[in-house]
Amino acid sequence: MRCRTCGSKAVINMPQHRLALCKVHYLEWLPAQTQRDIAKYHMFDNSDRILVAVSGGKDSLALWDILWQLGYQTEGLYIDLGIDDGTTYSRRSGEYAQAFAGQRSLKLITVNVGKEYSETLTQMAARTLRGREKPCSVCGLVKRHILNRVSVENGYTALATAHNLDDEAAILLANTLDWSLEHLSRGQPVLPSGPGFTRKVKPFCRVYERESAAYSVLRGIAFMPDECPHSTGSKQLYFKTYLNEWEESMPGTKLRFYNNYLKALDSGAFPARQQAPEDLAKQRCPNCGQPTTSGGLCSFCVLINKS
Amino acid sequence: MRCRTCGSKAVINMPQHRLALCKVHYLEWLPAQTQRDIAKYHMFDNSDRILVAVSGGKDSLALWDILWQLGYQTEGLYIDLGIDDGTTYSRRSGEYAQAFAGQRSLKLITVNVGKEYSETLTQMAARTLRGREKPCSVCGLVKRHILNRVSVENGYTALATAHNLDDEAAILLANTLDWSLEHLSRGQPVLPSGPGFTRKVKPFCRVYERESAAYSVLRGIAFMPDECPHSTGSKQLYFKTYLNEWEESMPGTKLRFYNNYLKALDSGAFPARQQAPEDLAKQRCPNCGQPTTSGGLCSFCVLINKS
Repeated sequence: MRCRTCGSKAVINMPQHRLALCKVHYLEWLPAQTQRDIAKYHMFDNSDRILVAVSGGKDSLALWDILWQLGYQTEGLYIDLGIDDGTTYSRRSGEYAQAFAGQRSLKLITVNVGKEYSETLTQMAARTLRGREKPCSVCGLVKRHILNRVSVENGYTALATAHNLDDEAAILLANTLDWSLEHLSRGQPVLPSGPGFTRKVKPFCRVYERESAAYSVLRGIAFMPDECPHSTGSKQLYFKTYLNEWEESMPGTKLRFYNNYLKALDSGAFPARQQAPEDLAKQRCPNCGQPTTSGGLCSFCVLINKS
Repeated sequence: MRCRTCGSKAVINMPQHRLALCKVHYLEWLPAQTQRDIAKYHMFDNSDRILVAVSGGKDSLALWDILWQLGYQTEGLYIDLGIDDGTTYSRRSGEYAQAFAGQRSLKLITVNVGKEYSETLTQMAARTLRGREKPCSVCGLVKRHILNRVSVENGYTALATAHNLDDEAAILLANTLDWSLEHLSRGQPVLPSGPGFTRKVKPFCRVYERESAAYSVLRGIAFMPDECPHSTGSKQLYFKTYLNEWEESMPGTKLRFYNNYLKALDSGAFPARQQAPEDLAKQRCPNCGQPTTSGGLCSFCVLINKS
C-alpha cells in the first residue's frame, strides 16, 4: 500500500475514503480535514476563544493538538471525576492532560469534582439508582453542567468536544432505534449559543475513531490508553460494536449514516422538538442559575443536592 | 411456563409481550391482535373486497387464514415467478397456495410471469445488471406491478401483503442507515388508494415472524418451508440478523423501533417527500397505463421491454 500523495510506504489505509497515506501526509491530512469541517459547519474562527474539553484520551488530545496547530485560541478544561477506586483512572488521565498542555505551554483549567461538589463521580453513581444502572448517563450530566459553567463564567465563545464519528454514529443509532425526536432534532455538529449557553462544537464529528487514534500515535502524543472502568456494558459501546461490523463489510457505512442524517436534518426531517434557547432562558435553576427545562432545580442540582 | 389465560402448559413464550400461551389461546390471540391492528390503522372493514398476496409461505398463508376466519371477503393472488432452476421453488410454492385455497374453497388467482411476460423472474434477474446485483429488487418491482394491476383490474378495494414486523423493522433499519427520506416518509402500514392505485395494507406489521410461523405450525397449515434461492445475501436478511441479536438481548427492540417510528411519523417527522397520488395520476406509463413518476415508461415496462 502506497501513499497517494508521495508514493512512499503508507502507514494507514482508509477504505472509507479510498485513501492510503504515509506518516508525513497523514499528519497533514487530518488537520486539513478538521479545518474543512470547522469551516463547512461554521464552528468558529480565529476571533473565537475556544474551551476544549480534555479527558486525557486520544481523541481530545488529538483535537487540541490540531486546533493548536491550526492557530486557534484554545484553552483546555480537564474535569477530574475522581474515578480512582482501584484504578487511578482519573489521576492518570489528568497527568496525561497536564503533560500535553505543559509541553505546548497551553493553559489547562482543572475542575476537581470531589473537592468542588463533595463527592466523586464514582460516589454519585453508587448513590443513585440512575447512576448504578447507567453511570455514563450521570457522568454526562455532570460533565455537561461543568463544561457549560466554566465556559460561560470565563467568557469562552465556543466549547469544543472531541466526539468522533464513531461516537456520533453510535449515539445516532441508539436514538434512532428509540426514534427519540428530541435527540434526533438536535444532533448537529454545532449547537448555537443562547442566554446562559456557550456554542457547542464537534470538530471531529466526521473523523473515525481509528483516524484520531492513528493521529495521536503518529504525532507521538502520550494519551491515557484505558477505557473508563464505568463504561463497560454501556449502550454506546454496544452499538459501536455493530457499527464496526457494518463498516467492516460495507466501508463508509458510519460516514454515510451520519452524513445522510445531517442532510435529512437540513431538509426538515425532524421539526425541532426542543424549546428554543430564548424560551429556555426564561427558566433558570434557582440553585446554580443555569438554564433548565424543568422549572425547578436543574437535573445536576437535583443530583448533587442528594435529596 | 404456563398459559396466562388458562394455566395449562404454554407452547409459546413471547418475552416481547411478557406473555406465554397454550395452543388454544395462542390460536385465538393472534387473530385478535391482527384484528386490533386492522381497526387501529383503519385498514379495511367487512364491506371491502380484499386481495391477499400469497406466496405459499408461512406469513401469507397465516394472514389469509386469519382474515378468512375473521370473516373478511378475501381472494388470493399467487404470482408464479418461475424460480425453478434446480429448485422447483415456485412450482412447490404454488402448490402450497393452491392446496390452502382448495381446502377452504377460497378463490386463488394465479399470474404466471413466464407465460404472461415471456420471461421468468430468474431470466429477468440474469439479463439485467440490477437483477444480477440485487435480484430481490427486480422481484419487488415485478410483484408490485402485478399486484397493483390485478387489484385495479378486478376492482379490489384493498391489497393485503403479509409483511411482518421482522420485515418492516429490517427495511426500516436499512432505510434509516441511508436516511432515505422518500422511503422513510411512506413506511405506514396503510398506503391510501389513489387514481390507478389500490389501497395497500399490512395487517401483520406488528406480528413477529416467529409468531406467524408458530401460528401456521399450530394451525396445521402446510406451507413452503424454503427461503427463496435468490434471497441469499440480501440486505434485508443481513439486517434481520442484527435485529434478531438485539431482540435477544433487549426483548421488544423490533416492536419499539417500529412503534416509535410510526409515532414519529404521526408527529410530523419526515414531511412527505413523494408526489401526492393526484400528481402521480397525471403521469401514466404509455405502455401499461399504471401511474409512474418517470414521465416515460414505468420501471416495470423498461424492465420487460428489454431495451
